[in-house]
Amino acid sequence: MPKLVLIRHGQSAWNLENRFTGWWDVDLTEQGVQEAAAAGTLMKEKGLDFDLCFTSFQSRAIKTLHLALEAMGRLWLPEEKSWKLNERHYGGLTGLNKAETAALHGDEQVKVWRRSFDVPPPLPEAGSPWDLARDARYRGVAIPQTESLKDTIARVLPYWEERIAPELKAGKRVLIAAHGNSLRALVKHLSGIPDDEIVNLEIPTGQPIVYELDDALNALDRYYLSER
Amino acid sequence: MPKLVLIRHGQSAWNLENRFTGWWDVDLTEQGVQEAAAAGTLMKEKGLDFDLCFTSFQSRAIKTLHLALEAMGRLWLPEEKSWKLNERHYGGLTGLNKAETAALHGDEQVKVWRRSFDVPPPLPEAGSPWDLARDARYRGVAIPQTESLKDTIARVLPYWEERIAPELKAGKRVLIAAHGNSLRALVKHLSGIPDDEIVNLEIPTGQPIVYELDDALNALDRYYLSER
Repeated sequence: MPKLVLIRHGQSAWNLENRFTGWWDVDLTEQGVQEAAAAGTLMKEKGLDFDLCFTSFQSRAIKTLHLALEAMGRLWLPEEKSWKLNERHYGGLTGLNKAETAALHGDEQVKVWRRSFDVPPPLPEAGSPWDLARDARYRGVAIPQTESLKDTIARVLPYWEERIAPELKAGKRVLIAAHGNSLRALVKHLSGIPDDEIVNLEIPTGQPIVYELDDALNALDRYYLSER
Repeated sequence: MPKLVLIRHGQSAWNLENRFTGWWDVDLTEQGVQEAAAAGTLMKEKGLDFDLCFTSFQSRAIKTLHLALEAMGRLWLPEEKSWKLNERHYGGLTGLNKAETAALHGDEQVKVWRRSFDVPPPLPEAGSPWDLARDARYRGVAIPQTESLKDTIARVLPYWEERIAPELKAGKRVLIAAHGNSLRALVKHLSGIPDDEIVNLEIPTGQPIVYELDDALNALDRYYLSER
């Protein structure tokens, strides 16, 4: 029976400061480092093991994977990184904290961007310090300028179908370390959550989410590992 | 012009204790962690960059790679791990320190094992605490019981030819984080070092070794990055 574990990266510096992060490559806090290692220890204690890991191009997810694997004695597992598992791109909101965003755009508009399924944040301004056009990791990638959750799902799911689902169907045990919204994309798909509900589903940092799947990758069960 | 960088893992706990390590999965010391990060900082300062990384199945090499990549802002680079880049397997010497080995086998015999090209150490004793037969990472691998340097070369070079050389020929910039003897195998091959000399070539921990290669992967130059 295929088993899949999802883990959102541990706390990042901008999680702590409540700033829109998106594709900006913010590091883990010390608490985030500890959450990641604790997730690995928990998975080991619960007898979970993996054959293959996936993560994004963003350091906070990659480090979470590495810290968890180290705690499991599984640093040697193969890992594949893809920008398609990156966080939702917050466009012109990147770098702003809650207060700055509300001052610029108003509380109501911010709520729309945070909680709507298909409304993307505004485009970044020209000359934005958060521009990734010259970041070597995205050479050859059509970097989005901003994304709704729907846009994020539209690049996560093809990657799931092409790269991850075939491995699960082939019997591989898979661990994915990624981000709040790229994981929402997967949870929506696997658990059949409607558009208006998925935007409110919170995915906590550093908490392994276990999916037990049937051979066609339908979800039989989904739970937080810490609760079993 | 293809460029290749080799880096031996930073100091491990058993480097420090002068014990034969081989395939045993010993962690980096704090000094080893710092050596690895410093190697990454040096590579970044010198303007080196990579497209693809290779490492072994052993934590000390994998962590060295990750720490160096993090210092370079390159954690997102693809990496491939293989047991074929593991350290030489020291067989029945695994776990013994210099004094214990000399007491058991005599100084002369130890020198032969350390410095001969094709004499493998003795087989491990039955019930050895260093047996890797049940280590999940080597499932499906015909684990050697002991290896001479010649034996190590005989599994490193096919991996080089099959996996690494084609990437270099295709223009990829390659970083390899591995071990004293798996790197000796590569240096012997690339620099044409005779059997009786390669056994005396010391590869220092955490020092990036740069190879400038022609299109047929003949070595045009080899140097320690810290010296240029």
